[in-house]
Amino acid sequence: MAFETWFIAPLSALISILVGLYFLRYVNKQDSGTDRMKEISNLIRSGANAFIRREYTTLAVFVAVVSILMLIFLPSPVWQTWGTTDQWKNFQLALAYVFGSSCSALAGLLGLNVATKANAKVAQAAKSGLNRAFPVGFRGGAVMGLMVVGVGLFGISVVYWFTGDPSIILGYSFGASSLALFAKAGGGIFTKTADISADLVGKVELGLPEDDPRNPAVIADNVGDNVGDVAGMGADLFDSYVASIVAVMILGLALDSITGNANLFIQIPLVFAGFGILSSIIGALTVRVGKQGNPGNALNMGTYVTCIIFGVTTASATYYLGYDWRIWGAAIVGLSAGVIIGVTTDYFTSEDKAPVLKTAEASKSGPAINIITGFSYGLRSVLLPLIGIAIAAAVSFKLLEPLGQQYSATIPYAPLSFAVFGIAMASLGMLSIVGLTVSNDAYGPIVDNAKGVAEQAGLSEEVIAITDELDSAGNTAKAITKGFAIGAAGLTVIALLAAFQEIVRNETGTIISFDLMNPWVLLGALIGLAMPAVFSAMVMLGVGRNASRMIDEIRRQFREIPGLKEGKPGVRPDYNRCVDIATRGAIRELMPASVVAIVATLVIGFVCGIEALGGYLVGSIFSSLLLALLMANAGGLWDNAKKLIESGKYGGKGSDAHKAAVVGDTVGDPFKDTAGPSLNTLITVMSLIASLFAILIVNYNLLKLLGIQ
Amino acid sequence: MAFETWFIAPLSALISILVGLYFLRYVNKQDSGTDRMKEISNLIRSGANAFIRREYTTLAVFVAVVSILMLIFLPSPVWQTWGTTDQWKNFQLALAYVFGSSCSALAGLLGLNVATKANAKVAQAAKSGLNRAFPVGFRGGAVMGLMVVGVGLFGISVVYWFTGDPSIILGYSFGASSLALFAKAGGGIFTKTADISADLVGKVELGLPEDDPRNPAVIADNVGDNVGDVAGMGADLFDSYVASIVAVMILGLALDSITGNANLFIQIPLVFAGFGILSSIIGALTVRVGKQGNPGNALNMGTYVTCIIFGVTTASATYYLGYDWRIWGAAIVGLSAGVIIGVTTDYFTSEDKAPVLKTAEASKSGPAINIITGFSYGLRSVLLPLIGIAIAAAVSFKLLEPLGQQYSATIPYAPLSFAVFGIAMASLGMLSIVGLTVSNDAYGPIVDNAKGVAEQAGLSEEVIAITDELDSAGNTAKAITKGFAIGAAGLTVIALLAAFQEIVRNETGTIISFDLMNPWVLLGALIGLAMPAVFSAMVMLGVGRNASRMIDEIRRQFREIPGLKEGKPGVRPDYNRCVDIATRGAIRELMPASVVAIVATLVIGFVCGIEALGGYLVGSIFSSLLLALLMANAGGLWDNAKKLIESGKYGGKGSDAHKAAVVGDTVGDPFKDTAGPSLNTLITVMSLIASLFAILIVNYNLLKLLGIQ
Repeated sequence: MAFETWFIAPLSALISILVGLYFLRYVNKQDSGTDRMKEISNLIRSGANAFIRREYTTLAVFVAVVSILMLIFLPSPVWQTWGTTDQWKNFQLALAYVFGSSCSALAGLLGLNVATKANAKVAQAAKSGLNRAFPVGFRGGAVMGLMVVGVGLFGISVVYWFTGDPSIILGYSFGASSLALFAKAGGGIFTKTADISADLVGKVELGLPEDDPRNPAVIADNVGDNVGDVAGMGADLFDSYVASIVAVMILGLALDSITGNANLFIQIPLVFAGFGILSSIIGALTVRVGKQGNPGNALNMGTYVTCIIFGVTTASATYYLGYDWRIWGAAIVGLSAGVIIGVTTDYFTSEDKAPVLKTAEASKSGPAINIITGFSYGLRSVLLPLIGIAIAAAVSFKLLEPLGQQYSATIPYAPLSFAVFGIAMASLGMLSIVGLTVSNDAYGPIVDNAKGVAEQAGLSEEVIAITDELDSAGNTAKAITKGFAIGAAGLTVIALLAAFQEIVRNETGTIISFDLMNPWVLLGALIGLAMPAVFSAMVMLGVGRNASRMIDEIRRQFREIPGLKEGKPGVRPDYNRCVDIATRGAIRELMPASVVAIVATLVIGFVCGIEALGGYLVGSIFSSLLLALLMANAGGLWDNAKKLIESGKYGGKGSDAHKAAVVGDTVGDPFKDTAGPSLNTLITVMSLIASLFAILIVNYNLLKLLGIQ
Repeated sequence: MAFETWFIAPLSALISILVGLYFLRYVNKQDSGTDRMKEISNLIRSGANAFIRREYTTLAVFVAVVSILMLIFLPSPVWQTWGTTDQWKNFQLALAYVFGSSCSALAGLLGLNVATKANAKVAQAAKSGLNRAFPVGFRGGAVMGLMVVGVGLFGISVVYWFTGDPSIILGYSFGASSLALFAKAGGGIFTKTADISADLVGKVELGLPEDDPRNPAVIADNVGDNVGDVAGMGADLFDSYVASIVAVMILGLALDSITGNANLFIQIPLVFAGFGILSSIIGALTVRVGKQGNPGNALNMGTYVTCIIFGVTTASATYYLGYDWRIWGAAIVGLSAGVIIGVTTDYFTSEDKAPVLKTAEASKSGPAINIITGFSYGLRSVLLPLIGIAIAAAVSFKLLEPLGQQYSATIPYAPLSFAVFGIAMASLGMLSIVGLTVSNDAYGPIVDNAKGVAEQAGLSEEVIAITDELDSAGNTAKAITKGFAIGAAGLTVIALLAAFQEIVRNETGTIISFDLMNPWVLLGALIGLAMPAVFSAMVMLGVGRNASRMIDEIRRQFREIPGLKEGKPGVRPDYNRCVDIATRGAIRELMPASVVAIVATLVIGFVCGIEALGGYLVGSIFSSLLLALLMANAGGLWDNAKKLIESGKYGGKGSDAHKAAVVGDTVGDPFKDTAGPSLNTLITVMSLIASLFAILIVNYNLLKLLGIQ
């Protein structure tokens, strides 16, 4: 073939980056409004930049230390490979690691940059109507979406181009993941510290409305939306996206060696990912809302359009490139499961369905019953997504398994290798449209901030109402994109588990088992079960501690600044101190939990061996799927129960029911925006560490040393 | 041998029943105090009896239906075995099932009977001092403890005597478990409905003290302690105890067939259980408190004495009966793990350790921060117990595995069979002293009720202080016994999982795998993961709904009964209506969750086959271990954080911090006393169902029918 098919990936990625830059220019050209609006926007931007600068400085140290360690130890200790052809592998891996973390940081910075500018521009455009403001918000979000997939896939293509070795791409993926873990935890702690403190003192104690400029934490709260929900979320999905592609490539390489093809199965994920990006770009360009249109529907329509384009283009590719149709089938199974999970998840957080209605009603009996009810519905909500993931995994497994039958006489594990490649393709299918889902997700905090700017700058009621409508559209779209994120994370980690098994098989020849009747697997699984819980606890306790400090500060300002509470003209709170408390707290708290999780993974491996490590991954995957679903949905429904009451139901604003619902919402904040979403990244990081250290662990572990294993 | 060694079990069981009856007589002989005390005690007793009568009537219908179904279908459909020697098996199994549920009910009724009488007697004895009151409370609890193990083990012995077939004992165990599931859920919903409502209206809204006679829910609250914490908990541990013995017997039978011994390994669990009972009796008889003694220490000392006696007597038995020392070792590993888990669990709920202190301190920032902090520590608390279970399982596995090596040439699975027997022995070791731990546990609600009677009957401050001291001793002891219960549940379900595997192997010759790279196992595991969450949600929503109804009723009484709030002499609330609301609500809510769990287990099996069912068990075991630990510990620490504040710290009673802590305590109530403890029973029931239906499912399931599997 004259044209290398895998070029589809880097080309699509470049187009994505270019369209992203075009959107960036589009947003930059918009008017930022009055001086007061610019001032507020500047406060938010400088707060966000200050935090990001400090966060990335801390992370740079971490990345430097890890890359030196990798240079020495991975994939093999340098003293073993010195002088052999493998001596450059350590260098390649460390370089890929630094490259991966840099790419993730770059995508995050670009997205954050436009998001912190777009807020005032959306508010200003809202003066000319909804259909003028909507594209500014959406395109602002799309910068993040297109950059995440563009930079991510381009980076993979570059590493693949230079090395042709998916085990080096693993290093790139690990770079992205470790950055995402810290960015997600740090941003999550920042945003919820500010949100909780602003709510508890402002709304509950003093009865101020949301985004009231008298509240000293209001700027910190807006900064939090950007560093948590834009930059953190972007890093998170960058990580999942890259990890899912790498998992398929590793499993594809195994198929290439089984079937004797050169570069067939390893390139399929790149081709599919390329078409996924092109579909997302077209989807993003078609998103628009008419004069009377509904922005929520517009966003969801974009998702469906993207799905259909992806289905059609990959079908054509399958036909022209002669891929087996079952592979396409697995990707479509994944994509469909994503949509179905999204729609069912929507049920638990919709304001007109039983869970939110009953939770809001329960608020009349006080905060405790609100918490019990919301938590219970959160527990119940895990069922359907888990069934969805389970069926998608089983179907894609059985779909591809028969392709391996013909090789099973000589290679007994061939059917299994094809089957797990199927699961990995399903996860890739789900994540293929991530360019668009991230765009929708980043749209949310931008228009939320626009509303904040409008409120603080004292714009007219009509303008505020338009930003409100834009904001609630973000929530509608979020349900479906969240379904994708959760489902994809579930399938991706299963694919990573299979990749881990494949790496061990490839290096040692033995197929490690995940059978729980193996005592080491059982041991690892039981301990793994605890890790996501411990990690969640650590970040949430961080939020709690940090919020306590900020609450004290807010109370102090209201006590000591004369005229602040009464809203005397010209009296302004000291916003910067709150931003500073959130920043310092987040930087201090973001490290321990992540480091504990990383170190625990290594300890299990180097003490109890590779089988225990496999069990450990299984245990943590199960535990984090359960906790992530519970936390995301419970948090979302508490939030909406509060909003329902604020809309006038069950007593309305200021009633006892409202106060109870605010307690529920506050509890839900770190659930849904700090701990819950970090768990996806956590298990990706753990799985990547396990894969990277697999060979070392097989050779050196305590139980083997003691002769027990 | 002239004396059959397994007679040790029924003889010890009979002695246990006799000592239990002796304690019953001892308690009955005590003075019940003044007329007012008798009146209150009678109110509690008649409320409890009314509930139990209705609950058992409902359950009798369920038991009747299930036994008829068993008669027709289990272990094989009656039309297949008709006319063969197997035709009586269905009859035996159904009979064993009815026998098991009746034995469990009997033990529960006896325990409840003495507990509802002992309350006033303890209060009366407290007038003569702590060391007079303590034995009344302890012996009242010991009736339950000794009856549970005595009746449980005697029943097993009887079924074994008549059939010699552990698969029939499985029916007995299923009878006990299904009863326990309903009793635990029903009792748990009753007790927390009353507790939450009494607290929220009485304490929070009106500022009444605990157990104030003006509170219409106060009697319902006291009734709840008895039906939930005495009867429900008794049924729960009856179930775990029986299930663990049955699991070891099933795995022992397999060893007998491997080694060619007749009735050796199958009888070892009976011998160990027998010595466990004897140790518990001696332990119970030695529990006493001197004039200046500390009742909490007395209870814990009893536990340690029992452990030591168990270790010594079983070592002697091992020596004289020529058992392999490794078997004894596995039991001791289990017992030690129980103690260690108990001590570490204690850390998270002790009033002088960081988790409770920080949660209490966090209450100053309001209920939301209290909830976030307590919940986070609850998440963190799962780590050490899970490590304890993991190590106990791995050590006991590796300890017995070598015994199977000599058979592995002809029987490849022999080492695994020995190894899982080791895990089962560890679970038996942990549960061997359950006679004493139940005694300690049942002591708690008795002295709690005694305090209630003392408060309501207006006894002197000194008497109330003594009952208070007795009460807090119950909490001290509870930490260690809870550690045992949790650890034992974890190991028991792993043993049941192995028993399930053994049953399938025995009947079909194939060893089913729990390998997650099998798509059906993975499918089952992901769905199984959701079930404990769904079950917890259903019972907690039941509590929430029921509490809302009772809160309305309490508010109504305070509004409509003149002079009630002010405490006008002679004015009494209508206690019965509250008891009635709790009863009707609990009866209505106890069925759905349990039936859903049972039906879901069957659906997975009959639709997706036996491997999916195995995965399903794995998923639910993991999920319920995680949730049970989280809920038990978070609930306990919220409770103690509230108590700490009530003792005067962080603002003391009536402060905002106290109100926040009451919200946390209320959220924790259904966590620790309704959902959490039901989960142990839930997974036991699921495992037993899987084992009972294994043969049917192997032959008839949809995927097999469709040719997919």
